[in-house]
Amino acid sequence: MNYTGTIKLKIKSQEISDITDGIEDIVKESGIQNGICNVFVVGSTSAIIINENEPMLVQDLKDSLEKVAPSKEIYHHVENAYSHLRAMYMGSSQTIPVKDGRIVLGTWQSINIANFDVDDREREIVVMIVGD
Amino acid sequence: MNYTGTIKLKIKSQEISDITDGIEDIVKESGIQNGICNVFVVGSTSAIIINENEPMLVQDLKDSLEKVAPSKEIYHHVENAYSHLRAMYMGSSQTIPVKDGRIVLGTWQSINIANFDVDDREREIVVMIVGD
Amino acid sequence: MNYTGTIKLKIKSQEISDITDGIEDIVKESGIQNGICNVFVVGSTSAIIINENEPMLVQDLKDSLEKVAPSKEIYHHVENAYSHLRAMYMGSSQTIPVKDGRIVLGTWQSINIANFDVDDREREIVVMIVGD
Repeated sequence: MNYTGTIKLKIKSQEISDITDGIEDIVKESGIQNGICNVFVVGSTSAIIINENEPMLVQDLKDSLEKVAPSKEIYHHVENAYSHLRAMYMGSSQTIPVKDGRIVLGTWQSINIANFDVDDREREIVVMIVGD
Repeated sequence: MNYTGTIKLKIKSQEISDITDGIEDIVKESGIQNGICNVFVVGSTSAIIINENEPMLVQDLKDSLEKVAPSKEIYHHVENAYSHLRAMYMGSSQTIPVKDGRIVLGTWQSINIANFDVDDREREIVVMIVGD
Repeated sequence: MNYTGTIKLKIKSQEISDITDGIEDIVKESGIQNGICNVFVVGSTSAIIINENEPMLVQDLKDSLEKVAPSKEIYHHVENAYSHLRAMYMGSSQTIPVKDGRIVLGTWQSINIANFDVDDREREIVVMIVGD
C-alpha cells in the first residue's frame, strides 16, 4: 500500500520552516499504520532537515552554514553556488518510520524545509508513504 | 509487509557506537527478503552514520566535527547547539536496501549511532523494514 | 512489491558522475507506479548526492569539501581519512519518491555518485524500489 501527498508553500530566502503538522496530516489521511515515510523537496537549493525548530538554534544553523558555505565567497557557479552547497550538506530528503499511524519523532524533532536560494521561492514537498 | 524493531542503548557523550549486528538481527527476525530498511534515531542531538567504525577514523570524524561545529564556540542556543548542528550534518536516519534477507553493506560499511549531546544518554533507535 | 537493480561503473578519484538515467531505467523495468526508491552505494568512500550536475558547481563542491575535509591534512586514519569524511558529510544513500512510474526530481536535480577515494574505483550502486 502507498499514499502520496504534496505540501506547497511560499518560503523566504534562507528561511527554515516547520512542516511537521502538514506531514502528520498526510500520514493520517493515508490510513497506513506501519511503514516508511519519505519527505522529498523538489528543487536543488532546498533541503529537508529533521531537528529542533527553535529560533536561537535556527540562527546557529544559519551561522554554521555561512562558515561552511559562505554567501560572499567567489564561486565558479556564480548565481547561487552557496545555496546548492548548503542543500547538499543538509540533504534533499528525509525518511522516517511510521508506527501505529504516526511518524516516529522525538520530543525535540520536527521536520523542516529550508530554502537556501538567493530569492524567495514557492516550494513543493512530496510526501510518499509505503506500508500497511 | 512491514516489521519494526527497537534498539535501546546507553551511550556516552560524543561516543560513536556500531549497531550493525542489532539491525541485522531485526532484519532476520522480520523474515523480509527484499525491501528497504530505515534506521532512525529518536532525539535531535544524535545521528545515524554509515561508515567504517575504525578507532582512528572515528577520532578523525570527531576532529572534523570539532572544526565544523566547535564545542567551545558561543552559540545563541546556549546549552548544546553544537550537538544539534553535528546531528544535522550527519543526519538522524539512514536507509539501506535489504536483499535476500540481509542488509546490503560494503566490507567497510557499518551502521553507527553517534551521541553528540553534552551528556551521556540512553538512546532509542527505531528500525522499520518494508518489503516482501 | 519490490524490485532491485544494480549499476556498476568505473569512476575516477574525486569524480562525481550522473547516474539518473540508469536509475530511471531500473524504475521503468520495475513496473512499480508509486512507491519509494532507495539508491545506495556499496563502499565507505563514496556518496550519493542529489543536486545539479553542472561542471562549475561540481568544482565548487570539490573546493568546499577540500575546506571541510582537506586532502593534505594529517589524519589518524592515514590512508584516506578525507575520503571517508567526505562520504559521511554527503551520505551513502538517497531516497526518492516514485510517482506515476517515475522518480520525482526537480528540473535541476540529478542523482550522482561521488568517488572520494584516493584511487579510481569500480563502484556498485544498489537501487531498491518498494511500492505498487
